[in-house]
Amino acid sequence: MPDSTTTLADLRTAVAYFVAERDWAQFHNAKDLAVSICIEAAELLEEFQWHDAAQVAAAGRDLEARERARLELADILVYCLCLSNALEIDVSQAVQDKLALAGCKYPAEAYRGRARKPGQ
Amino acid sequence: MPDSTTTLADLRTAVAYFVAERDWAQFHNAKDLAVSICIEAAELLEEFQWHDAAQVAAAGRDLEARERARLELADILVYCLCLSNALEIDVSQAVQDKLALAGCKYPAEAYRGRARKPGQ
Amino acid sequence: MPDSTTTLADLRTAVAYFVAERDWAQFHNAKDLAVSICIEAAELLEEFQWHDAAQVAAAGRDLEARERARLELADILVYCLCLSNALEIDVSQAVQDKLALAGCKYPAEAYRGRARKPGQ
Amino acid sequence: MPDSTTTLADLRTAVAYFVAERDWAQFHNAKDLAVSICIEAAELLEEFQWHDAAQVAAAGRDLEARERARLELADILVYCLCLSNALEIDVSQAVQDKLALAGCKYPAEAYRGRARKPGQ
Repeated sequence: MPDSTTTLADLRTAVAYFVAERDWAQFHNAKDLAVSICIEAAELLEEFQWHDAAQVAAAGRDLEARERARLELADILVYCLCLSNALEIDVSQAVQDKLALAGCKYPAEAYRGRARKPGQ
Repeated sequence: MPDSTTTLADLRTAVAYFVAERDWAQFHNAKDLAVSICIEAAELLEEFQWHDAAQVAAAGRDLEARERARLELADILVYCLCLSNALEIDVSQAVQDKLALAGCKYPAEAYRGRARKPGQ
Repeated sequence: MPDSTTTLADLRTAVAYFVAERDWAQFHNAKDLAVSICIEAAELLEEFQWHDAAQVAAAGRDLEARERARLELADILVYCLCLSNALEIDVSQAVQDKLALAGCKYPAEAYRGRARKPGQ
Repeated sequence: MPDSTTTLADLRTAVAYFVAERDWAQFHNAKDLAVSICIEAAELLEEFQWHDAAQVAAAGRDLEARERARLELADILVYCLCLSNALEIDVSQAVQDKLALAGCKYPAEAYRGRARKPGQ
């Protein structure tokens, strides 16, 4: 099922089912899940270690490099969904709340058309 | 909109809109997004720095600690969705493919009922 | 040469020599070195992924686990010394300055004998 | 004391003294120290978030940016030295052993004069 028809609840259920089948929920405390997210985030970053801008762009077009990045991104997301299950966090609400907060901190009109990065 | 009715496409669109309003897509190369995911993952982990098991459990019940963790998780997810937009990765497909691969590597029957962690 | 007789300058020179022999200084900008430190830090952390307190203590006594941790720590330190070389930072001075600043933020008398962690 | 006259043992002792004054050794298990190294590594990386190559070079010349990077590097090193104290690891020996292993994996003659990065 693609992103157009998969709900966050669907994806959270798929991850919860995978975890339940292996009796792994007992290990899924928030700290160890945060540790796992960090580890997987660094593995994604490793795909681009030492890459200059041209190599980063090339990796996005290279089939094998893209596939490795796709699966590393999935690893991070799986642990994020495990954490949302463990802490009973509604992911969609959290993302929308965060965008609203970030929208106040970084007003669109202060950035649009200015090639200005957040924090600058 | 809660997880039960929000599709991954909905959430990706919300993030893409936020980025477009600020002209930030120009900065969203895969390496810098991976860097940002790492930074946010470490900020989530910081919520549990030095915590022993009892403190981790208590943080999950404490309203303020839980809210901080919720927004840090959202930060990670926002950048993950930015990366899926930048590389045109179908997030649902990636997670399902990853679960299928992990299912081969960690067969359920080898773990269920054994208090056995992945890699052990 | 052991820690008792090796100066920070000795160690920085050893690392600089290793880098120079491979013409790698051209890649050693501060951002890519910080990325590399992050990646190696996560690899060290991976040695303790899912470990509870008893398993962490056991890993410190297990010869193989200890050796893996020792080499992961070395990886982090090598990149830290590369960064100190790239930015011409005196490591000893930086550590002493940082301890002085942390000493003001966390006065010894507020913590000693109280089982109180930083930030609590 | 500068790097030219400070031994690793001197620096490890300074860190151990700081920790002992606050009774913090009780918290210094290998996992929590690895977590702390990760957190500090990400804070260093944050100094260069979204920076392109020109901005990274400029940050190295900017007094304030350089000072922030210097203190973030010191944070990482302090926790690395805490870990070496906790696990009784000789840092100089570890770095030299690691350089010897890396020297076999990446022979100098395969890289020198070729603008070739590790892993390429």
